[in-house]
Amino acid sequence: MCETAHAHASLAGIELVHTGVHGETRESRWPLVAPSQLASYYAPLAVPKAMELEDVRRIQADWVRAARQARSVGFDVVYVYGGHSYLPLQFLSPFYNKRTDEYGGSFENRARFWLETLELVREAVGDECAIAVRLSVHGLGPAGVELEEGLAFVRLADHLVDLWDVTVGALVGLTRVDSGASRFFAEGYQLAWTGRVREATAKPIVGVGRFTSPDTMAEVVRSGRLDLIGAARPSIADPFLPKKIEEGRYGEIRECIGCNVCYSRFVHGNHLGCTQNATAGEEYRRGWHPERFQRAANADRDVLVVGAGPAGMECALVLARRGLRRVHLVEAEGEIGGLMRWVAQLPGLGEWARIVNWRKAQLDRLENVEVLCATRLDTRAVREYGAEIVICATGAHWAKDGLNALTHQPIAGADATLAHVLTPEQVMLDGKRPPGQRVVVYDGEGYFTAAGIAELLAQEGHQVQLVTCLEQTAPVCDQTLEGPLLRQRLHEAGVRTHRNVTLTAIEPGLLTGEDEFSEPLELEADAVVLCTQRLSDDTLYHQLRADEEALRAERVEALYRIGDCVAPRLIADVIFDGHRLAREIDTDNPAVPLPYKRERMVVSPRP
Amino acid sequence: MCETAHAHASLAGIELVHTGVHGETRESRWPLVAPSQLASYYAPLAVPKAMELEDVRRIQADWVRAARQARSVGFDVVYVYGGHSYLPLQFLSPFYNKRTDEYGGSFENRARFWLETLELVREAVGDECAIAVRLSVHGLGPAGVELEEGLAFVRLADHLVDLWDVTVGALVGLTRVDSGASRFFAEGYQLAWTGRVREATAKPIVGVGRFTSPDTMAEVVRSGRLDLIGAARPSIADPFLPKKIEEGRYGEIRECIGCNVCYSRFVHGNHLGCTQNATAGEEYRRGWHPERFQRAANADRDVLVVGAGPAGMECALVLARRGLRRVHLVEAEGEIGGLMRWVAQLPGLGEWARIVNWRKAQLDRLENVEVLCATRLDTRAVREYGAEIVICATGAHWAKDGLNALTHQPIAGADATLAHVLTPEQVMLDGKRPPGQRVVVYDGEGYFTAAGIAELLAQEGHQVQLVTCLEQTAPVCDQTLEGPLLRQRLHEAGVRTHRNVTLTAIEPGLLTGEDEFSEPLELEADAVVLCTQRLSDDTLYHQLRADEEALRAERVEALYRIGDCVAPRLIADVIFDGHRLAREIDTDNPAVPLPYKRERMVVSPRP
Repeated sequence: MCETAHAHASLAGIELVHTGVHGETRESRWPLVAPSQLASYYAPLAVPKAMELEDVRRIQADWVRAARQARSVGFDVVYVYGGHSYLPLQFLSPFYNKRTDEYGGSFENRARFWLETLELVREAVGDECAIAVRLSVHGLGPAGVELEEGLAFVRLADHLVDLWDVTVGALVGLTRVDSGASRFFAEGYQLAWTGRVREATAKPIVGVGRFTSPDTMAEVVRSGRLDLIGAARPSIADPFLPKKIEEGRYGEIRECIGCNVCYSRFVHGNHLGCTQNATAGEEYRRGWHPERFQRAANADRDVLVVGAGPAGMECALVLARRGLRRVHLVEAEGEIGGLMRWVAQLPGLGEWARIVNWRKAQLDRLENVEVLCATRLDTRAVREYGAEIVICATGAHWAKDGLNALTHQPIAGADATLAHVLTPEQVMLDGKRPPGQRVVVYDGEGYFTAAGIAELLAQEGHQVQLVTCLEQTAPVCDQTLEGPLLRQRLHEAGVRTHRNVTLTAIEPGLLTGEDEFSEPLELEADAVVLCTQRLSDDTLYHQLRADEEALRAERVEALYRIGDCVAPRLIADVIFDGHRLAREIDTDNPAVPLPYKRERMVVSPRP
Repeated sequence: MCETAHAHASLAGIELVHTGVHGETRESRWPLVAPSQLASYYAPLAVPKAMELEDVRRIQADWVRAARQARSVGFDVVYVYGGHSYLPLQFLSPFYNKRTDEYGGSFENRARFWLETLELVREAVGDECAIAVRLSVHGLGPAGVELEEGLAFVRLADHLVDLWDVTVGALVGLTRVDSGASRFFAEGYQLAWTGRVREATAKPIVGVGRFTSPDTMAEVVRSGRLDLIGAARPSIADPFLPKKIEEGRYGEIRECIGCNVCYSRFVHGNHLGCTQNATAGEEYRRGWHPERFQRAANADRDVLVVGAGPAGMECALVLARRGLRRVHLVEAEGEIGGLMRWVAQLPGLGEWARIVNWRKAQLDRLENVEVLCATRLDTRAVREYGAEIVICATGAHWAKDGLNALTHQPIAGADATLAHVLTPEQVMLDGKRPPGQRVVVYDGEGYFTAAGIAELLAQEGHQVQLVTCLEQTAPVCDQTLEGPLLRQRLHEAGVRTHRNVTLTAIEPGLLTGEDEFSEPLELEADAVVLCTQRLSDDTLYHQLRADEEALRAERVEALYRIGDCVAPRLIADVIFDGHRLAREIDTDNPAVPLPYKRERMVVSPRP
């Protein structure tokens, strides 16, 4: 790794960290260790060992050994990483540290563990390595330090540190603002605190906080508040971000939308994913370069992609880059985007529009792509279009009858042709509104749709209850670090939430259901918005598939489908699906993904 | 694997399964597939693809290929596994299968996928392999089949099947009774349904359901209801279970307690653990044979183990087996067992007493062990005991002041010397009871203690509210498959539950706190039982450690501590801790575990 980084004239750094009470030791079966014997909210069953002096020495020696090893294999920067709430910060924070010995009590005592470790690491790596420290300078709550002590630590340790890597927040509840989602955090949201670190040091400072725009980055560096911009998520969305900035290719930057699917997939899915960048995590295992596309063996063909939602746009883009003669992207609606036309209108999800905007801009540049809107094709029109390859990307719609994962049945009285029963598309695209003040949004999916519509209707003055058959309100948002903030926001908007409730019948004015113990339950409501499950819009595909002879007669050689039209799922996965088909359009059977190299992991992080 | 199994005169079988809508495809990024496009309650965001005929053929071909590969490497038994709710059963069950083609509708149509797959696999492996089918013969709810159809499928497929592997239940909520915990299920609990499979077949039948006693196993086989006993968990608790039965060594069987820690650790911790068997999962990576113990290099020493809880008992047992001259296990209380003295008294946890009973029986047989109860040792008594090695295993206690993981502070007014504030030990060991009818049990840990005490007090006639600062009631029990049944039982016992509530003050008659949005909240209660976090009883250890000279003066060469006395945690892990120290008592530094071989996994199962 180091040699490869050096070959590209880059430095290689390594974050050496001990996570203390927030560690994952179920695999090793070591006891957790911490400054004091205080359980972690995340895994309170495993109370830590309060570190003895020999534990302090052992962990410091481990840090030295790790730093030496890092240096010996060529790393240029080693970290003594404290981050948001890891061991060095646990010593520094009075929330975690209740010690009465020389490692607890006064600021100097609480700083001792970190400072000693820095001294030992400095001694071990000498001048051959830079030493970086990651530090949350302001905990935004009890589980960290106040800004004043954060800056005091910078001053105290400054002579031992070559690079300050600063952040804010902690690992507890609403103070968990690292990797802040765009739903809640604006670009540069950490600067209010990290921008003040300059007061305490003349050393280089790197900071993070949703920096995605080159202009903002340049402005922050010019102002002297930061010297380097940390941008993990923007680099996942576009690994060539620095290169594109350097070369002034701003319009080509695939800007991070701040959805945190990367985080959720890495931690909960054993694979890094990205909504904007379908190649993220696929570079090695599928051999996909984010910016390089091989000319297809069947590039002399015309392709018709029916439906310009996320999957269709991505597929058309990659096919065009692979040199297909003509790529026809035909959309029934008046504009491209598919579900993104309304998803990006949900409260807080405005930046998600970049999914469409970036693809639209790239499609516009390619001469072999033709985008046609407001054109609904039937089977005959598809067959006669003149394309040898047809790809259905016709998307999905929310069930109009309450069909749901819990009962696998519609709900009695659920009929979205009635005034008091609504679907997300009706609310967002058709402007349909509840016939009265009181509305229940019923969620069977657990991600952004139901919660977003609840918030929107509350903003419009409705009295909203968000009811879910799941155990938690919007549980998928807990995987994207949005959960606690989202529920707080719903609470502030006056939305009342009910969990573990299964609706069984819908009548005007009254909803009936049962709780988790099958006890009956009634809710008064003038209307219900049904977000129970989505269903593929696959009629066109099946009609075409049913008459293969007719396809052949019109010289259609191949028929595929992609995205929600196959199976409604995460936007990142339908974009991947479109990308994948285009990457493999010239294989023996493009409908079935090629095998890939299997990644291996040793332990998975705690959720 | 096959060759090793054969070398031991055993057959090797392989469970080939497609999990359909309950699959984990976040790593592969394939869409889920299922008979019909119905979301899974477990991951409703990822709606499956309704299988096309080509998907049916592809998956059947994959099964054939897998079966051929299995046969070619020497497997004797291949499965066409449908289990509780996997793909073949999803086709069979009207809950999952709403198809209108030849694979849906009538019983024959719903059975077609499974039957065809069996025919293809039979054709592929010929007579060289036995074919087994795992089938839930009764779904206990909508997400499976009724017993009548379960038996009808056995009759229908019987000519293609050599071994019926039968179970009950499904993967949804309260019907998830596979791997039933002893808290809710008696030995042989599945026989009410699986015992009827004999009506439909003369082929061998294997069944499961918490079989742990050789007598029960023999009785069930003799009755003809089953031909083979499936016993995964009992074999984890004692891999030599069949051998010990064969040789009549019944008293040596380390009987499974039915806690499901194995399941929870395997699925949620990347490592197989077992409360009864500390060597489970350690055979390869640490080289520990469950029944073989090497004579210690320092076997000429005497050891004093202070405290006969789970860690102390296990440590003494392993030290004795390693041939230490004398092992003195000294317990302050009147009987051995530590916290198990009261934990096994909690409703439903009676079988957990096997932790103590088995160890007591083994200790009794060893001539180099001396167990002494009702003897509380102070530092001087320890030093003067005459043992060269001293091991503190003095356990832990519940905080008496409400110290908790959320605030890292005591709760105002929490003082267990008062009549209206109780700790678990006071309730269970001292007989202390609330001074009135209304009691709140406050849980900061999330496992069995608070829920068990709530149930116990409700049984005694108290009006109980179970309040937790966590997001779910007893969330750890969801990892052991106990959660839904436990909450149902609490509900039936009249226990009202509150989640996400932080208590801030305790007064006689009134508790105050806040909800997840920091909104104030009051609860009327005559008393509160505090299950916030545990704290190590480590005073003796620290006092001994503080005067190393005094230790040396009495020829004490080494001082260690194990179990909850180091860090209060899962019982399985403290037993492991005691075992580990004894296995490594003659290494350079027994206080620090030896490194072990790191296991590698490719994907981790969905929680």
